Amino acid sequence: MEPHVRVIEVKRSIFENNDKDAARLRAELKEKKVFLLNLMSSPGAGKTTTLLALAKALRGRIKLGVMEADIDSAVDAEKMQAAGVKSIQLHTGGMCHLDADMTRQGLAEFGLEGAELIVLENVGNLVCPAEFDTGAVKNMTILSVPEGDDKPLKYPLMYEKCDLLVVNKTDVLPYFDFDPQQVERYAKQRNPDIDILYISAKTGEGIDKLADWIVAQANAWRA
Amino acid sequence: MEPHVRVIEVKRSIFENNDKDAARLRAELKEKKVFLLNLMSSPGAGKTTTLLALAKALRGRIKLGVMEADIDSAVDAEKMQAAGVKSIQLHTGGMCHLDADMTRQGLAEFGLEGAELIVLENVGNLVCPAEFDTGAVKNMTILSVPEGDDKPLKYPLMYEKCDLLVVNKTDVLPYFDFDPQQVERYAKQRNPDIDILYISAKTGEGIDKLADWIVAQANAWRA
Repeated sequence: MEPHVRVIEVKRSIFENNDKDAARLRAELKEKKVFLLNLMSSPGAGKTTTLLALAKALRGRIKLGVMEADIDSAVDAEKMQAAGVKSIQLHTGGMCHLDADMTRQGLAEFGLEGAELIVLENVGNLVCPAEFDTGAVKNMTILSVPEGDDKPLKYPLMYEKCDLLVVNKTDVLPYFDFDPQQVERYAKQRNPDIDILYISAKTGEGIDKLADWIVAQANAWRA
Repeated sequence: MEPHVRVIEVKRSIFENNDKDAARLRAELKEKKVFLLNLMSSPGAGKTTTLLALAKALRGRIKLGVMEADIDSAVDAEKMQAAGVKSIQLHTGGMCHLDADMTRQGLAEFGLEGAELIVLENVGNLVCPAEFDTGAVKNMTILSVPEGDDKPLKYPLMYEKCDLLVVNKTDVLPYFDFDPQQVERYAKQRNPDIDILYISAKTGEGIDKLADWIVAQANAWRA
């Protein structure tokens, strides 16, 4: 039997000014001492696998919750729940991104009471999610080695908007033409302040450093 | 020095009825005996590398031209041009997809005179490009092995709209948990009529069969 997960159909926002709405949501999160992290990437870059690895690394340090956003299916939220992480699945009704009001609808269902760290796993897409402030405190993108080192050239806004770039699937570096120095150069061109970490969600390499980054950001926000 | 390529800034369509406009464009292509193939995938699935491999396999069989669509950069059109393939770069002005009118703007710059096969490499994105009929005769999507076998569950419309699914990067199958039977089952659930081919654009495996598929479709259209 599949584990039971809550699936929320989030509705298109009625707010015209998403930036203002996002700022309002961030202020609410600040008041409630909840750190919301917006996680973005291409489809298949390893968002869910990274979260599963993080769930272990964060245990005992900070309480993790996950909101999984997808066009369809609930496979991601089911995986998180099976791993013992509180999670809900958001369906976007075909939309390619989440805005602040859709995120708020998800948070209302998730429940902010006692929450410490909530990760919003955005729709797998390098274009639209970067265009809409979700109200998250920090934004993180995953680039997987098989996608190639030229992605910051083609999807500039994603890199401009993100505080952290995580390069995933380092275990397959020997099998792909991927130059880490190239990707760092391109990413810094887009955003000189971006932090960059390397992980393999599959082998666990680098996950502790990623957990440290998240906990440090969350502690600063929740202080 | 970088090769010189033409970069076209395509403008958002003024047509309200994209489906009607797409049908009109297809009729024009039929009349001019031009086969337009819309190629879609996630970022980094290997669209351009596949086209480079196809360029060799199609030589002497059909004349290939390529329109590369991206948010930014001209790296893809430069690669095609360096390989001796007539190509132009379309910039979408931040938009996550192409519609029929944007495609028409690109074709006008490309030039239909004497063209036989034109591949439109859409923006790397599994959501938005599937929502807009470009006017292409056939639609093809590439799923690369590292992305995982669950993609048809999460991005249903892409699979519903495509005539051909090409599974790429088969050379790295040993390093990933990817079940071809699973992906075939999921893809056929979404679209029982979808054709499925396996390639490695890197090693050339399967490229001849893909070239055969394209030539057969183009010949039928141009007859």
